[in-house]
Amino acid sequence: MRLAKVRGTVVSTVKDDSLMGIKLLLIQLISDSGDLQEDCEVAVDMVGAGIGEWVLVSRGSAARQQQRHNQKPIDAAIVAIIDTVSLDTGLLYDKREDFR
Amino acid sequence: MRLAKVRGTVVSTVKDDSLMGIKLLLIQLISDSGDLQEDCEVAVDMVGAGIGEWVLVSRGSAARQQQRHNQKPIDAAIVAIIDTVSLDTGLLYDKREDFR
Amino acid sequence: MRLAKVRGTVVSTVKDDSLMGIKLLLIQLISDSGDLQEDCEVAVDMVGAGIGEWVLVSRGSAARQQQRHNQKPIDAAIVAIIDTVSLDTGLLYDKREDFR
Amino acid sequence: MRLAKVRGTVVSTVKDDSLMGIKLLLIQLISDSGDLQEDCEVAVDMVGAGIGEWVLVSRGSAARQQQRHNQKPIDAAIVAIIDTVSLDTGLLYDKREDFR
Amino acid sequence: MRLAKVRGTVVSTVKDDSLMGIKLLLIQLISDSGDLQEDCEVAVDMVGAGIGEWVLVSRGSAARQQQRHNQKPIDAAIVAIIDTVSLDTGLLYDKREDFR
Repeated sequence: MRLAKVRGTVVSTVKDDSLMGIKLLLIQLISDSGDLQEDCEVAVDMVGAGIGEWVLVSRGSAARQQQRHNQKPIDAAIVAIIDTVSLDTGLLYDKREDFR
Repeated sequence: MRLAKVRGTVVSTVKDDSLMGIKLLLIQLISDSGDLQEDCEVAVDMVGAGIGEWVLVSRGSAARQQQRHNQKPIDAAIVAIIDTVSLDTGLLYDKREDFR
Repeated sequence: MRLAKVRGTVVSTVKDDSLMGIKLLLIQLISDSGDLQEDCEVAVDMVGAGIGEWVLVSRGSAARQQQRHNQKPIDAAIVAIIDTVSLDTGLLYDKREDFR
Repeated sequence: MRLAKVRGTVVSTVKDDSLMGIKLLLIQLISDSGDLQEDCEVAVDMVGAGIGEWVLVSRGSAARQQQRHNQKPIDAAIVAIIDTVSLDTGLLYDKREDFR
Repeated sequence: MRLAKVRGTVVSTVKDDSLMGIKLLLIQLISDSGDLQEDCEVAVDMVGAGIGEWVLVSRGSAARQQQRHNQKPIDAAIVAIIDTVSLDTGLLYDKREDFR
């Protein structure tokens, strides 16, 4: 899985029927120093994530393991909202710092 | 999934039988600043996308989730046409701006 | 899928039994400007592609969708020979130009 | 699989139900010279790995082969703790050197 | 599949039970000019490959197609030992040259 930051939302009217009612979020991957990387991806939100939060993103067939997403053409999903990331060199991220 | 722009079409006569009648579009991935990236890919169109439109591309086995594409040797599909992409810093893309 | 150019052939005597009789071609991926990229890959030929031709390559489990390749340890296949690639800015490739 | 070093831990309260009770470790991939690469990933620990250890990481559907992880939305797992890595040019890593 | 050179061996005592008795080799991917690339990977040996040999590596679920590796958490396998790689511009590799 990858650490990512929720950057925005993606809206689409014309889409595969199975994607109706799914929340699509724009995310940016995070490097080991906590910086945002250039590539952005779009992931299905499974946990009610909000803009600015750090999340865990699963890609590939992992995104279709939940029964209700089983046969949808999706390849990335937000599967957790991060509380803290602790490195051997100290705390990389603490949600309470970001959102107080 | 990735944001991408439809750049062109790919025509092939000699191909795997299961690919007959499938529309193949050339797409280019889009970065977080809205720029086109160097790599281009070819994706099966599932939603009637047109040249110049921003679309959502699913890759890997996700591209074969639709029943009629189930056993085809494809690894990328256009699954949605994008209306808007909204970032925390403002609107990154609005289809009505591009196509009016 | 990716656009690629067939660059050569790979011969192997000691290999997984299931790979007997399979034609392995060396391919190089093609960028949006039509240039060859540095990485080379090896793909199973499903369509009778020849050296120098532009082809369409499917990767991952997509390469095993044909019944006769179903349980082989392969992760890339040439699934089509390209006739033309048309961009919004003009023709990127025309097989008749290359092979006349 | 990739060689990686365990760098830290990731804690999450709000997550997909199937991820309850799973230990998530932050890992960094290792290059051929033994250096850490910039990208970090999050993997499910299957073998009791500790901070600082070199481990083997499997990605994609490989991470879901253990029966108890079968239908979880995970795409990376630590499947082994490395004792030694021997190159033709000498020993790249010896756990006893690192942890004595 | 990718061309790779076998660079060394990886030894692990603490590992997923299903990996007992499997030979793990360190490999380095090869570019179109025959040079080694920076990233190294670890692959399960299926064909008795030796240090210094050029091999063919399959990744992803392709590595689990052999019945005895079916449910193991592995994502890369050496599936062939290369004899020759011939490019349109000449011979890139000949095993007899390397090992005489």
